[in-house]
Amino acid sequence: MEFVAIVALLALLQYIWFAVLVGQARGKYGVNGPAVTGHPVFERYFRVQMNTLELLIALLPGLWLFAHYVSPTWSAVLGAVYLVGRFLYLRSYVSDPARRGAGFGLSMLPILALLLGALAGAVRNL
Amino acid sequence: MEFVAIVALLALLQYIWFAVLVGQARGKYGVNGPAVTGHPVFERYFRVQMNTLELLIALLPGLWLFAHYVSPTWSAVLGAVYLVGRFLYLRSYVSDPARRGAGFGLSMLPILALLLGALAGAVRNL
Amino acid sequence: MEFVAIVALLALLQYIWFAVLVGQARGKYGVNGPAVTGHPVFERYFRVQMNTLELLIALLPGLWLFAHYVSPTWSAVLGAVYLVGRFLYLRSYVSDPARRGAGFGLSMLPILALLLGALAGAVRNL
Repeated sequence: MEFVAIVALLALLQYIWFAVLVGQARGKYGVNGPAVTGHPVFERYFRVQMNTLELLIALLPGLWLFAHYVSPTWSAVLGAVYLVGRFLYLRSYVSDPARRGAGFGLSMLPILALLLGALAGAVRNL
Repeated sequence: MEFVAIVALLALLQYIWFAVLVGQARGKYGVNGPAVTGHPVFERYFRVQMNTLELLIALLPGLWLFAHYVSPTWSAVLGAVYLVGRFLYLRSYVSDPARRGAGFGLSMLPILALLLGALAGAVRNL
Repeated sequence: MEFVAIVALLALLQYIWFAVLVGQARGKYGVNGPAVTGHPVFERYFRVQMNTLELLIALLPGLWLFAHYVSPTWSAVLGAVYLVGRFLYLRSYVSDPARRGAGFGLSMLPILALLLGALAGAVRNL
């Protein structure tokens, strides 16, 4: 299970890094809290952080339940694919929001695989 | 504990379905990212997804801690009430935001019961 | 582990209290859903709740993994520091967003300590 925990912690540290980028964009583009709009590049960084939060709520239970009911090794592998996908999502969204599709898919599909695999495993265990 | 895991996974899949509805509403009402405003019906779908994220952060630990300290069966039952309440919340919010109260209550009250029950159980175990 | 569970549950109840304050601010300042802007004081309460959600996604796994790999007692202590920091964050943000730094640091630093400590513990266990 250590690899699953390490992947989960790296996903959270990646997310905190995204939040730091949002804070830096606040300064650079002069968007003071509580505002979350005002400059298009700031808004891209903010949406990357928010979308990552939206995925983490499903990734983390998915990693654990898949590891428990199916396979810890494959759970960590799917989590590693997510990490790469999220990094590509950041890169593409900030340069051009219209090109975020590949990075989004590469971070969303492992989550769906984790949730559906864990669901099948839990149902089989009934 | 399998029923608790199944309810948690269904809550996450329901939430991903809500996110898919937001994506479809982006296309239908011409609201391109990073914007999250611009058409009232899109904003309703977006708020349903966000509010569901706001509840999931409390539901998931609540399900597990209640199951651990109080009862796995009642944890799964309260989670099932949440699932129905969230579905009603989606339906009512999209048709008329002013009528979202019943669905909200039916998804919020099970969460409060899970958290307060788990807290009482953990304190009793000290 | 009971103290870790109690701190986690208190963090979630504190967050629900912040959400209730947002609901009250909706009424007081006439900001009806799905809108999340329209009055500066409402927007402060809303950002406090959202920022707390942004931190909880990292706090909760951090509490558990730190307790598992390092020390349950220190996990609960760091969680208690977070609780105080979040309360100060609410107080300062609502009165003057520019003064939210101390409360933010006092709730963010324990989370970083939990994540990095848990990561070191999991790597050492490989």
